[in-house]
Amino acid sequence: MSGTASEPALHRPGFGISTNVGHANAQRIELRRYDLVDDLIGHTSYTETLLLTVTGRRPSAAQVGAVDAVLVSLVDHGMQPSALAARLTYSAAPDALQGALAAGVLGAGSSLLGSMEQAGKLLADIGAEVRAGTGPRGAAERAVNRILDDGRRVPGFGHGLHRDGDPRAIRLLEVASELGVAVEETGWLAAVGAAIEERTGRRLVVNATGAAATILLGVGIPWHLHRGLAIISRTAGLLAHIGEELDQPIAPQVRNALREASWLTEEHGPTGGPDA
Amino acid sequence: MSGTASEPALHRPGFGISTNVGHANAQRIELRRYDLVDDLIGHTSYTETLLLTVTGRRPSAAQVGAVDAVLVSLVDHGMQPSALAARLTYSAAPDALQGALAAGVLGAGSSLLGSMEQAGKLLADIGAEVRAGTGPRGAAERAVNRILDDGRRVPGFGHGLHRDGDPRAIRLLEVASELGVAVEETGWLAAVGAAIEERTGRRLVVNATGAAATILLGVGIPWHLHRGLAIISRTAGLLAHIGEELDQPIAPQVRNALREASWLTEEHGPTGGPDA
Amino acid sequence: MSGTASEPALHRPGFGISTNVGHANAQRIELRRYDLVDDLIGHTSYTETLLLTVTGRRPSAAQVGAVDAVLVSLVDHGMQPSALAARLTYSAAPDALQGALAAGVLGAGSSLLGSMEQAGKLLADIGAEVRAGTGPRGAAERAVNRILDDGRRVPGFGHGLHRDGDPRAIRLLEVASELGVAVEETGWLAAVGAAIEERTGRRLVVNATGAAATILLGVGIPWHLHRGLAIISRTAGLLAHIGEELDQPIAPQVRNALREASWLTEEHGPTGGPDA
Amino acid sequence: MSGTASEPALHRPGFGISTNVGHANAQRIELRRYDLVDDLIGHTSYTETLLLTVTGRRPSAAQVGAVDAVLVSLVDHGMQPSALAARLTYSAAPDALQGALAAGVLGAGSSLLGSMEQAGKLLADIGAEVRAGTGPRGAAERAVNRILDDGRRVPGFGHGLHRDGDPRAIRLLEVASELGVAVEETGWLAAVGAAIEERTGRRLVVNATGAAATILLGVGIPWHLHRGLAIISRTAGLLAHIGEELDQPIAPQVRNALREASWLTEEHGPTGGPDA
Repeated sequence: MSGTASEPALHRPGFGISTNVGHANAQRIELRRYDLVDDLIGHTSYTETLLLTVTGRRPSAAQVGAVDAVLVSLVDHGMQPSALAARLTYSAAPDALQGALAAGVLGAGSSLLGSMEQAGKLLADIGAEVRAGTGPRGAAERAVNRILDDGRRVPGFGHGLHRDGDPRAIRLLEVASELGVAVEETGWLAAVGAAIEERTGRRLVVNATGAAATILLGVGIPWHLHRGLAIISRTAGLLAHIGEELDQPIAPQVRNALREASWLTEEHGPTGGPDA
Repeated sequence: MSGTASEPALHRPGFGISTNVGHANAQRIELRRYDLVDDLIGHTSYTETLLLTVTGRRPSAAQVGAVDAVLVSLVDHGMQPSALAARLTYSAAPDALQGALAAGVLGAGSSLLGSMEQAGKLLADIGAEVRAGTGPRGAAERAVNRILDDGRRVPGFGHGLHRDGDPRAIRLLEVASELGVAVEETGWLAAVGAAIEERTGRRLVVNATGAAATILLGVGIPWHLHRGLAIISRTAGLLAHIGEELDQPIAPQVRNALREASWLTEEHGPTGGPDA
Repeated sequence: MSGTASEPALHRPGFGISTNVGHANAQRIELRRYDLVDDLIGHTSYTETLLLTVTGRRPSAAQVGAVDAVLVSLVDHGMQPSALAARLTYSAAPDALQGALAAGVLGAGSSLLGSMEQAGKLLADIGAEVRAGTGPRGAAERAVNRILDDGRRVPGFGHGLHRDGDPRAIRLLEVASELGVAVEETGWLAAVGAAIEERTGRRLVVNATGAAATILLGVGIPWHLHRGLAIISRTAGLLAHIGEELDQPIAPQVRNALREASWLTEEHGPTGGPDA
Repeated sequence: MSGTASEPALHRPGFGISTNVGHANAQRIELRRYDLVDDLIGHTSYTETLLLTVTGRRPSAAQVGAVDAVLVSLVDHGMQPSALAARLTYSAAPDALQGALAAGVLGAGSSLLGSMEQAGKLLADIGAEVRAGTGPRGAAERAVNRILDDGRRVPGFGHGLHRDGDPRAIRLLEVASELGVAVEETGWLAAVGAAIEERTGRRLVVNATGAAATILLGVGIPWHLHRGLAIISRTAGLLAHIGEELDQPIAPQVRNALREASWLTEEHGPTGGPDA
């Protein structure tokens, strides 16, 4: 697919690139070899097509249901800094909604995005060891110790707000169990929890991103892409916030509060400022 | 919701802002007054929750089906510049997937995003006139003339590649009709097409963004937010391209081609360059 | 430079692209035909190299001084929503400073970026008419009437805060005059101000972006790129705010205020929510 | 500056935030206690004001010269993937230049941005040990061993293209030496190079980001912010590329090449695609 390494790039058709994701000509569009119009539009949900496009395989109904659950669970969590950033940006540039969504997505940061990815990587690493012959308990213990020795937090566990249990996580694992999805991965997640308790004496609760990563891995989405699903989910919430900004703006109040915070008053002294 | 205009911002609780999108405390999370865990996760699809969150109303099955069709139709269209931008950015910064997705989204530009929004606005303007008593035909003619007089293109019609008909558009309108969704709006769209033909003598085909905007308006999504749905759709395709970049990278070939294009050779002369 | 239109893209070296901005090989790097190392590093300021790179011509000292004044004038304006967005984003994702700067830049929006560009375009349009033979007064009047008839504001004039005169604008035009830069363009700007007063009876003050656009046009920067200079300027201020966030964070207080604004209390009712 | 931790956020003026970066009222604007209009515009260069704003201190002429050298050195490096991403994005959305610049900046990625930051952190860590009493040689060896043991590359050294010496780095260190800037930091950089050679037997050349980080640290810019200077520098180059796209577009050729790469031909089979 990538052509011979030694052949100069410029002489290969389309400079040597190709893709299996999708193709189009004037009459037809294919998405992973399915005809977009005849096979997909009006026959599949967005989530089903998302899975097909990303994994290259048509998903089962159970897999779609589990991923729907993940996408639903991360849509919104009250007025977050990312929602505020999106609303402020939209207010400043209403002609460029994509900028506001980008600002909101960029602001979702480590607690949502990084956490999803790291939880996915942790479980994927354990899975790799398990496939090589190690038992899940031992693999989980080694992984947890490596992280805790580094002074880092174990991703997928703990939450600043939901200290007694993240209701979204509990429900997600319940849905996965009902649908028979991510059975192995859920076992690895439990092994991680047990390893944390054994090492620290504390029982940390699974959080939403930990449960989400478990399911995504179980349906075949590489951990490298987990952030993308969190982004798709959170974009729905950000879009709703931007829509609310149209009718019930908060940007004016925030701008007023900011102006008050940086108003230049006499106490800031005469011109000339301090010396270097 | 926005508080009294005269009261200083700093003295109002939460500096005077509030939201109806969602709320959370340590035990529960609500999305538009529905309990996220008990009512939504495992009971709704992403698309259904997207509609609830954005419009504030629980959608009907027909509305969900129509919006699913829209989201599926815009996922990918072959290797687009936005997909290339996303893959190049991911290759340069694999530790920040959100940056790659943002780059891809920003690059979707006018042909997808602007077009969706403008088509939605055009139909919304016609709808406003219709609700004020004008017939759709007259409203469409006035709107079309205004646009063509300005030297602009009528959004929602025509396509550089699919000159004899955009298969996605035909299928989308078929799905909307089967589901009984956006009946009025589809009539306005047809009136626009007729007005174009009457004014220019040319019969332009409806394109995918025109059909998509028709459906989104019909389910109650304000035209200001239509770009957001296009972005959610296209993000799925971009995520798939980034996933493919993990296994079958094209960035190396592109970097080689770019290096060849900007290689410093003797013909570029000695140091000193031209005078100012 | 772009190759023959009819020749297939894939058969041209470097797929038919080339650039005059810069070239490099293993030993040397050229920027607009100047040797980066021997001619520029340590011999020019950033602003001088910025002008050379963008316009392709080595600027005069007066031109550099005028552009320096523009870049200095737009660095910061108190705690703006864009600064808040940048600080919140950095707090959420400190491992990706570029995301925080991007969020801040995207949030600078219409009042800074769009305004710079529109003021530049307005003056460029007047300049085009003048070069075609019209007097500046008439060209300005026609342009102003076109804008006001459209119900829009004349860019470059007026300011929400500095109602009696934007001190930055006055100083910028003073600097331009002292340096003998943008003499013609300053005349066009004055003609616009006179045309506004004649049409509306109100004397609007020139604002910073209007004065900035005047100077940038005068040194040969196309109006399409004016936003870029505003961005470079504002990035310095955003970087300073992010630096302050490292030592004196405000994100925690903002997150607290947001949490208070969206805390789920009993008044939000039992599960089940309203019907569709 | 941040208020008492225990006092509820909502009751503090401006919800408890303040800033030292800048303030404004209707008549005056201050930047780090200097009057923007009377002290800075027309009296300072952009680089000087950048340093004042970020560090809070008025820089010396030598410091300004060294930072100018850094900013000039990273403006462009031939047609990079980030330049291509910026040009493609601008071509798709010419009404939103900030999106194109954001796309280009996001695509500058690890090789420029991450590398600047990591080199700065490495030197800052060595500096911390030195201030605590360790000699630079020992501190450098420990730091280098830690990195190499981790299987990572030592930031600031080595370059894929400039294998026999990065001309920009050599020149930058020369300028710093002439100006008497970053003397200590340059010593630490040399110690790192020596430690690499001692550990690996290979003499790696200092690269541009390594030399740049050395200078930036030497003038008092925290390593956390180094990416920001790289971004400001590279934005100038991206802006030039976008300007060139206006006159000599490459996006059409790239779109053609991409279309060829993803054209749907008969070999892609009939509708229906493969089974799940």
